[in-house]
Amino acid sequence: MLGKLNHVAIAVPDLARATALYRDTLGARVSAPQALPGHGVTVVFVELDNTKVELLEPLGTDSPIAAFLARNPDGGMHHLCYEVEDIIVARDRLKADGARILGDGEPKIGAHGKPVLFLHPKDFAGTLVELEQV
Amino acid sequence: MLGKLNHVAIAVPDLARATALYRDTLGARVSAPQALPGHGVTVVFVELDNTKVELLEPLGTDSPIAAFLARNPDGGMHHLCYEVEDIIVARDRLKADGARILGDGEPKIGAHGKPVLFLHPKDFAGTLVELEQV
Repeated sequence: MLGKLNHVAIAVPDLARATALYRDTLGARVSAPQALPGHGVTVVFVELDNTKVELLEPLGTDSPIAAFLARNPDGGMHHLCYEVEDIIVARDRLKADGARILGDGEPKIGAHGKPVLFLHPKDFAGTLVELEQV
Repeated sequence: MLGKLNHVAIAVPDLARATALYRDTLGARVSAPQALPGHGVTVVFVELDNTKVELLEPLGTDSPIAAFLARNPDGGMHHLCYEVEDIIVARDRLKADGARILGDGEPKIGAHGKPVLFLHPKDFAGTLVELEQV
């Protein structure tokens, strides 16, 4: 069922500083920042040869990563996103196995314009897992 | 400087359970468990199409992931491993930029039999970063 690792998301308190770190210190290709007000984040993509790292900074007063950064003021790994072919098939299989889907259980359109779901970290080894239909 | 994302490591309290989760619930290919007493972990590789997830369970009384699991009893993302061509060149560039290398600053032979270094999470957006020469 799982396809590629689409990205690792890292929440950061200072996007300009984290971007400079990946671009200048680590020597990676990075995108320009993109504000995604509907998702409450500004994002920079670190483009590796086989996958992406997404650097996420809170945007607005109701960002979904604000509480995480309050607990982790230096930043930290926030979630993993795995690709699936059919998100409804994936969801129904997970639910049949007893895994909890966050929110109302219906896919939303994610930051890449594709349907996504988030899975409960307590059911996935303490890791927030995003599934993205590709 | 950064090449591929070699793996995402997830520390887990129960390797058999985490393996079943990735194999049966998420439908991924997983390896047989490998005990690495010299590294204080038992590891299972989840083989994705573009990278790996490493599930790590403590082995022995002095495991480097024991303290992490004491803080995160459900498990959680422990580190990211990026590939580099020349670990000495990478280390010296990072040190020149003020980044801290963990331990004595000399590469060790990692779990894959290749030279590795770990970088200080405070210098890398709260993320423990492993560099592996490939």
